[in-house]
Amino acid sequence: MKPVNKTVCSLAALAPLAMAQSANAGQRPNIIFFLVDDFGWTETSLPFGEETYPNNLRFHTPNMERLARTGVMMTNAYACPVSTPTRTSMMTGMNAAHMGITSYCSLYKDTCPDAIGGRPGTTNANEDDIFAHPEWNYNALCPASFRNEADSIAYGLNRTLYATPMVEILRDAGYHTIHVGKAHWAPTGTPGSNPYNMGFTVNIAGSGNGHPQSYLPEEHFGNLPKRGTYASVQNMSQYYGSGIHLTEALTLEALKTLEDPIRRKQPFYLYFAHYSNHTPIQRDERFIRKYLDAGMDEQQARYASMVEGMDKSLGDVLDYLEAKGIADDTIILFMSDNGGHCLGQDKGGEPHTQNLPLREGKASVYEGGIRVPLIFRWPGKAAEGTRLNTPVINEDIFPTILEMAGVKHYETVQECDGLSLVKLITAGSKMVAKAQKRGEIATRKEVNAFVVPASVSGIDPERELIFHYPHQYRVEDQDDIDFMSAVRKGDWKLVYRMHTGELELYNLRDDIGERNDLAASHPERVAELAKALGDRLRAWKAPMPTVRTTGKPVPMPDEL
Amino acid sequence: MKPVNKTVCSLAALAPLAMAQSANAGQRPNIIFFLVDDFGWTETSLPFGEETYPNNLRFHTPNMERLARTGVMMTNAYACPVSTPTRTSMMTGMNAAHMGITSYCSLYKDTCPDAIGGRPGTTNANEDDIFAHPEWNYNALCPASFRNEADSIAYGLNRTLYATPMVEILRDAGYHTIHVGKAHWAPTGTPGSNPYNMGFTVNIAGSGNGHPQSYLPEEHFGNLPKRGTYASVQNMSQYYGSGIHLTEALTLEALKTLEDPIRRKQPFYLYFAHYSNHTPIQRDERFIRKYLDAGMDEQQARYASMVEGMDKSLGDVLDYLEAKGIADDTIILFMSDNGGHCLGQDKGGEPHTQNLPLREGKASVYEGGIRVPLIFRWPGKAAEGTRLNTPVINEDIFPTILEMAGVKHYETVQECDGLSLVKLITAGSKMVAKAQKRGEIATRKEVNAFVVPASVSGIDPERELIFHYPHQYRVEDQDDIDFMSAVRKGDWKLVYRMHTGELELYNLRDDIGERNDLAASHPERVAELAKALGDRLRAWKAPMPTVRTTGKPVPMPDEL
Repeated sequence: MKPVNKTVCSLAALAPLAMAQSANAGQRPNIIFFLVDDFGWTETSLPFGEETYPNNLRFHTPNMERLARTGVMMTNAYACPVSTPTRTSMMTGMNAAHMGITSYCSLYKDTCPDAIGGRPGTTNANEDDIFAHPEWNYNALCPASFRNEADSIAYGLNRTLYATPMVEILRDAGYHTIHVGKAHWAPTGTPGSNPYNMGFTVNIAGSGNGHPQSYLPEEHFGNLPKRGTYASVQNMSQYYGSGIHLTEALTLEALKTLEDPIRRKQPFYLYFAHYSNHTPIQRDERFIRKYLDAGMDEQQARYASMVEGMDKSLGDVLDYLEAKGIADDTIILFMSDNGGHCLGQDKGGEPHTQNLPLREGKASVYEGGIRVPLIFRWPGKAAEGTRLNTPVINEDIFPTILEMAGVKHYETVQECDGLSLVKLITAGSKMVAKAQKRGEIATRKEVNAFVVPASVSGIDPERELIFHYPHQYRVEDQDDIDFMSAVRKGDWKLVYRMHTGELELYNLRDDIGERNDLAASHPERVAELAKALGDRLRAWKAPMPTVRTTGKPVPMPDEL
Repeated sequence: MKPVNKTVCSLAALAPLAMAQSANAGQRPNIIFFLVDDFGWTETSLPFGEETYPNNLRFHTPNMERLARTGVMMTNAYACPVSTPTRTSMMTGMNAAHMGITSYCSLYKDTCPDAIGGRPGTTNANEDDIFAHPEWNYNALCPASFRNEADSIAYGLNRTLYATPMVEILRDAGYHTIHVGKAHWAPTGTPGSNPYNMGFTVNIAGSGNGHPQSYLPEEHFGNLPKRGTYASVQNMSQYYGSGIHLTEALTLEALKTLEDPIRRKQPFYLYFAHYSNHTPIQRDERFIRKYLDAGMDEQQARYASMVEGMDKSLGDVLDYLEAKGIADDTIILFMSDNGGHCLGQDKGGEPHTQNLPLREGKASVYEGGIRVPLIFRWPGKAAEGTRLNTPVINEDIFPTILEMAGVKHYETVQECDGLSLVKLITAGSKMVAKAQKRGEIATRKEVNAFVVPASVSGIDPERELIFHYPHQYRVEDQDDIDFMSAVRKGDWKLVYRMHTGELELYNLRDDIGERNDLAASHPERVAELAKALGDRLRAWKAPMPTVRTTGKPVPMPDEL
């Protein structure tokens, strides 16, 4: 366990509180966090880039387009390369490297190479012949309230981060907190796998699962007798044999949970974390035809049909809010937990190309693995139909949601790293809207390039964002994925390949695909960013792999 | 589906509302329904009978004793012979025969002999070589709100009862409604299997399960990979490998759910329906030693340890309420869903003797199958430490809880059969307490014999209670269990054996063990009760088996 200090965070110091300015002061907004799994930045008909890429024409997501028309698109939004770090970071406000939670947790507690000996043949092996795995928190997140209780009930957990979960703070501030879908903050067999321990009042289908064993009702979502695994989806038994795909079933259940707080006029926080579009890639019968007709192969079409099923769910949520007359009282966040998968066996297509023009995909610190779609809809507070290019990262979600909810003072045992995006979303989006109205920016490229200064947004566009994946992703080596770190600062990005000790430098404004390594021609920029990355990793005591031949940790990028 | 009429029930006509008389008027009480499974009337150190029976000395349930000291024991309380009829009856206010739900539902929808053809080798076969199974609602209970929706989502459910669930009414009246444990109102694959459809805001571990696949954390409550069944317990993944028995784990989760409504000062309804003491009978390590030392065989000791584990859970609930300072604001109901199991292979001992002096056990309409422990604790309203002998039955729970909750007017699509017990529990218990104080009754036998008149309780002590089990229980014939009905009226009970056409008559005051058949010497009483039973079954269109040789339904008891 990493040592943590009790910290009192006060948002009042960061920004005037949203609610104090609210038209309906005293009425706290509902918040829906619609989180999609493994959903790539380009895998949508809503283009986040300055160009429309081929993927934008292949996928069909009309409800994302609908959301964006009344929301704010964050065109430079980031998550961690894999699921658990992103999800726990959003729950704690900490960077993944700071948490020591740098990979996804396995399905069962302590099932990491260190615990079970040697190097098992799983996708969570985290090490190879050159590097031994780092000492990371593979038991992931545990609510701080269990730190003492854990002794009494003999969990005996090591390699876990104790922290104060955001949702606990929200609930204690008066929110009705609902979890629907994938949790994956910690492995099965630990308190962190139970959404009820994270501050949720309602939990449907959340557990240690990182993926569903099946999306298909005829397979009972993985619960057929004698066929179950730790990834079998729970609480969905009503839908077995119903013909209703998991994505649709979760939507029906999620909307049902809103009836009670709406009737009681209690503000709600719905964390609707779809299992889709994680593997297994299984067809959604409602939508697959058009993709097959368009010439996709079966695997690709399956994936596209899942994406559209997810998008349909978003539309159902939007319809519901309108039908209930609460659309204007409800904030929506739409996000993915990491980049799209880029290995061919899972979702078809040529491996490592599925997120083009972005390089690589899930588990990589190249843009394909970390750049994600992020949309905020905040009626009356954020300018509709705008785009913001300020780089933002998953740990920002924690203070952002709490500020949106009007929670002014709260205590956490952990030191938070993220910054509230409230001023960026509100004042920043209005600044963009005005510039558009005045005709100063018009094309998507111009809008995407418009910089909101820190004086308006409270966010330095040049702040450093850290990405750290000191692991092997699959048993087979993946050169552009395994054992890498990165830092983005403004337009510049440094990539550290631990295996080779190489440092690569890219200018993302000119080269979003990270094809043109400028390290040789910009040694000072490389040194500056290497030091920034090294300083942060040292300060956070970030997990680093051990070099097998020396027994020493992999050097920091500025110590090469 | 049975035709039902929209009925407006008004409790105002039945009794003055409890809340109007409450010391803390306007503050609705919390209600905890602590329901135990397959728990026999004598399997406790708290004697409900007028004598202390051997079982009362074998089992150790100190917290039931503690509850009874501040509560009201109902010494003539009844449930149906098996689980689903009792549970659905309490949810609808209807008698099981009226619902057409006369046996427990199987684990999966439509898996009844009629649906899958012939007579499968399951315990739910419901028929034998002489009788074909009755046309009963084996898809059990479905919330009325799904009656139309069911078409659109293609459940295509037949053999189901659509009714308005009690918990939906409670929730709509402002209660925070929590389900923990076993649901079993309907099979997996139907809306009725989902507590969220029944009006619960929170559900932990409830589904179509009628029993847990395992109580043991080392067996992951039935969720070990490739070992799962429809009876695998959901939402408990935190406790896998924890050493914490399911009964304890459910208790920890149940108490956790109360934090939120207590903080928000919303009255709560906690339906805490333990899986214990249903099969599989598995040892609770914390308590088994003393039973082995006392000479019980392993199976019996396992069962006794489960009972004590359940009792410890009750104590934890009582402790929690006291620690939170809400014990005086919280009503507790303690009940079992049917009598104790009486087949030797499951819980040891000589078959058909485990509930002595009561005859038979679970699934039988003899007292061993239907007589259950029932305790109400209602601080400030019911006289503490009293016993009431008025016969009451499971369908009374529906109007009783709603009246306790102060719900005056509500609509149901079904016609309710039960009566509110509120006046009996309040005015009735006070009448008993006064008689004891005046020394008019002293011994347990005298107290147990004291009759509260209908003028005080609103309940006619001579009203007829109907029990109906037109099924075969196990594949092997069970003479005293299969295909039987019964009616109790005052001290008299008529038992109808459909196989033989025999009518038996017992006087329960003199002969609680139903050993002395008085039918031959009381033909008029037999005729009166046979007509009462027949009239009710006809009026309710109760399911009756078909005689294979004639193709006709089994005759009513007054048509022999």
